[in-house]
Amino acid sequence: MKIKKPFVFINCAMSLDGKISTIERKQVKISSDEDLKRVDRLRAESDAILVGMNTIVTDDPKLIIKSERLRKERIKKGLPGNPIKVGIGNVNGMKLNSDFLNYGDTKLIFTTENSDPRKREELEKKADIRILGKNRVDLNKMLRILSDLGVKKLMIEGGGTVNFEFLKEGLVDELYVAVAPRIFGGITAPTLVDGRGFNADKAVDLKLLGAENLHDLLVLKYEVKNSRKYI
Amino acid sequence: MKIKKPFVFINCAMSLDGKISTIERKQVKISSDEDLKRVDRLRAESDAILVGMNTIVTDDPKLIIKSERLRKERIKKGLPGNPIKVGIGNVNGMKLNSDFLNYGDTKLIFTTENSDPRKREELEKKADIRILGKNRVDLNKMLRILSDLGVKKLMIEGGGTVNFEFLKEGLVDELYVAVAPRIFGGITAPTLVDGRGFNADKAVDLKLLGAENLHDLLVLKYEVKNSRKYI
Repeated sequence: MKIKKPFVFINCAMSLDGKISTIERKQVKISSDEDLKRVDRLRAESDAILVGMNTIVTDDPKLIIKSERLRKERIKKGLPGNPIKVGIGNVNGMKLNSDFLNYGDTKLIFTTENSDPRKREELEKKADIRILGKNRVDLNKMLRILSDLGVKKLMIEGGGTVNFEFLKEGLVDELYVAVAPRIFGGITAPTLVDGRGFNADKAVDLKLLGAENLHDLLVLKYEVKNSRKYI
Repeated sequence: MKIKKPFVFINCAMSLDGKISTIERKQVKISSDEDLKRVDRLRAESDAILVGMNTIVTDDPKLIIKSERLRKERIKKGLPGNPIKVGIGNVNGMKLNSDFLNYGDTKLIFTTENSDPRKREELEKKADIRILGKNRVDLNKMLRILSDLGVKKLMIEGGGTVNFEFLKEGLVDELYVAVAPRIFGGITAPTLVDGRGFNADKAVDLKLLGAENLHDLLVLKYEVKNSRKYI
């Protein structure tokens, strides 16, 4: 039986040339303090926040709500202070002392059969580990599990490979991109949407919902045309 | 003696994720008919239009002014109907029957010592060939030559490697980017600025000049901070 898909949106900051980091692939500040407040509000409105394993290993984001006021508002509504944190991919490179595991409330990791069983056992001390698929996490099954856990709104915070996989499956409803007034360049630098890419006839079509100025930063909002409503 | 640099701007259309073509690297329509009119006006206001050899080989752009009215206005002012067309890079892959060589008025090609001398001789039937540098065209010298030819305003129409080289040398004054409501994806797809890329501390800083809606297409205008004024 098909069920209604949770609302899925991608939020990301990039340089004007579409890069989400420089060629060095280290964590780099792209957005502004003002934009980080916008991101904090988006997190507070979400039931779960998802990132790929590459992002966890290279960026190690805390993925928590920074504003105490926003956390308190959630608790007042009977919600946990922070959304569920979701990591997906091969866990082999993940560190037990990562910020992803040490901050926030519920942590859920979807990984594959081919990941190291000892690493999975180690991580189980700090997170709920689920195996879904042999070499690739089955995104449809994952969304059904999240839906069963009460997730109605899922925020994806990258990186480029995860963004591609979700878009390829038609699972993304909206995209919010903060375009920084900078150029990173580099044929090897990671971009907003990487992966194998789309041929011209399979490119993802968007509808512009709006553009907002945060000083020199532009926040662009798009709806993904023809996204799936059921899973 | 230093001279005042011609005003140099990049104009480019890209997908939201910063790609100027898909993974197939074939010519693909990114901008709209309305945007092509904007590009035509930019060409008509320029003294020369420059592209890299990759773009000539894969896209083979005509790089002429499409509007007869705009061409006539230029001629009325004592200008040639079309701006000088400039190609730079290794000419070995260039075809004698390319649209770049067969359309427009003056064609100028800046190439390197290591390009095939027979190919250069062949191309001399249709274009003015200049050798500048051993493996890489010296952009400063090239701009001085263009300045001597009366070029005050140079339009760069890509691709990503040329855009990178000009930005790296601090030679770009402004950047106009038409962002299409599409996602191409792909780690190997060409982006607005490719090349070797910048480290985080060397990223190019921009100042947002404006954003304009052409239906679902967004045209973003930026000034490049700290660009060079003299060469």
